[in-house]
Amino acid sequence: MGRPRTPLLDRERIGATALELIDEQGEFSVPQVARRLGVQTGSVYHHVDGRAGVVELVRERVSASIDTATLGLRPWDAALTAWARSYRAAFAAHPHAIPLLMTSPVRAPKVLRQYEQAVRLLLDTGFPMAEVMTVITALENLVLGSALDLAAPETMWELPPDSPGTENLARALAASGTGRADAAFELALDAFVNHCRVRLAPPAPHSGRPAHSGPAASADSRP
Amino acid sequence: MGRPRTPLLDRERIGATALELIDEQGEFSVPQVARRLGVQTGSVYHHVDGRAGVVELVRERVSASIDTATLGLRPWDAALTAWARSYRAAFAAHPHAIPLLMTSPVRAPKVLRQYEQAVRLLLDTGFPMAEVMTVITALENLVLGSALDLAAPETMWELPPDSPGTENLARALAASGTGRADAAFELALDAFVNHCRVRLAPPAPHSGRPAHSGPAASADSRP
Repeated sequence: MGRPRTPLLDRERIGATALELIDEQGEFSVPQVARRLGVQTGSVYHHVDGRAGVVELVRERVSASIDTATLGLRPWDAALTAWARSYRAAFAAHPHAIPLLMTSPVRAPKVLRQYEQAVRLLLDTGFPMAEVMTVITALENLVLGSALDLAAPETMWELPPDSPGTENLARALAASGTGRADAAFELALDAFVNHCRVRLAPPAPHSGRPAHSGPAASADSRP
Repeated sequence: MGRPRTPLLDRERIGATALELIDEQGEFSVPQVARRLGVQTGSVYHHVDGRAGVVELVRERVSASIDTATLGLRPWDAALTAWARSYRAAFAAHPHAIPLLMTSPVRAPKVLRQYEQAVRLLLDTGFPMAEVMTVITALENLVLGSALDLAAPETMWELPPDSPGTENLARALAASGTGRADAAFELALDAFVNHCRVRLAPPAPHSGRPAHSGPAASADSRP
């Protein structure tokens, strides 16, 4: 048997197949990827650096949907909120990939360059060098927690018909509008960005001046 | 063969076994639970209401580690932060259970009663009925996102030795302290609770009065 004209295997197809498996069953193994592509497991390892290499192909694939142009917006708070919304949408499309990607170290070059952009945005805005990764991680946690929540059913609490001791919960649920997951995400995002604004430009005591993005946006704390 | 003196099966052991499987492999199936307990799959279904019933046993088990006494603390912001920290610790011990529990409707009576407590805390504090579930969900998203992050390696970004175009990321990582996940969680929690304080008691314009938990803590918006 001769070699097929079109290659059976490339990094693109390995990443796509692994993500397909994760979407279907919550996990993947390299032998499963190989089986689905009709090749030997060893052949997959010729193209990637172990299982971790496949995880990074999945990360690049999911992250490709994040609109990185958002990080070029100004002022910084518009950039951060637009990035967070786009980031959440990209991961909400693949909720099963979230735990895997959150607990594997980031090595994918394209994704590292996206973090570089986020770091530069925050440094240009005036965040101290030592706090930048904490700010990014905190934002990611609420983005990814909210992306998982978006994969949950709209009705997330099911009270039995006779629910003794849960009367207030029943009333609070009845009073809630639709779009539960979006409302919670926007509240948490608003809280986070407001907190960042205050940290950057604390209001002078007794001045009553609102803290907003103006004054700090031009500051640059980079040494 | 006679019946064994001690029952092979009860809800306690079904929940424990399902959680064990989730911890090990990220998922569980009812036949796997049955196999591990040495019984027929049908026998498991005599004790629980389908697979969803097993999920609720897992939810009760994971949630049992949350210190619900925190919700009785006052002022409300002390209660909310203590509950959030305890909630995160309970779920961080079982990170694989997080996606499953976040995307299945809550039916476990003990867990519903914990939500009732949280709802009452927020209503007593002065949060409007229509916003209570949004506040709780937003807090849960950051708690559970942070719990997943706590399961991640301390070194979450691995830059290649020569990392062109990621110089600022490298410097920000070098400047970060240890306890990455805890620092990010505390920042997000602080941001969220501060935002709630401001929503409850917006500072009067030009008064310079700081918004804190005092005045609103005695308000009660319940109809």
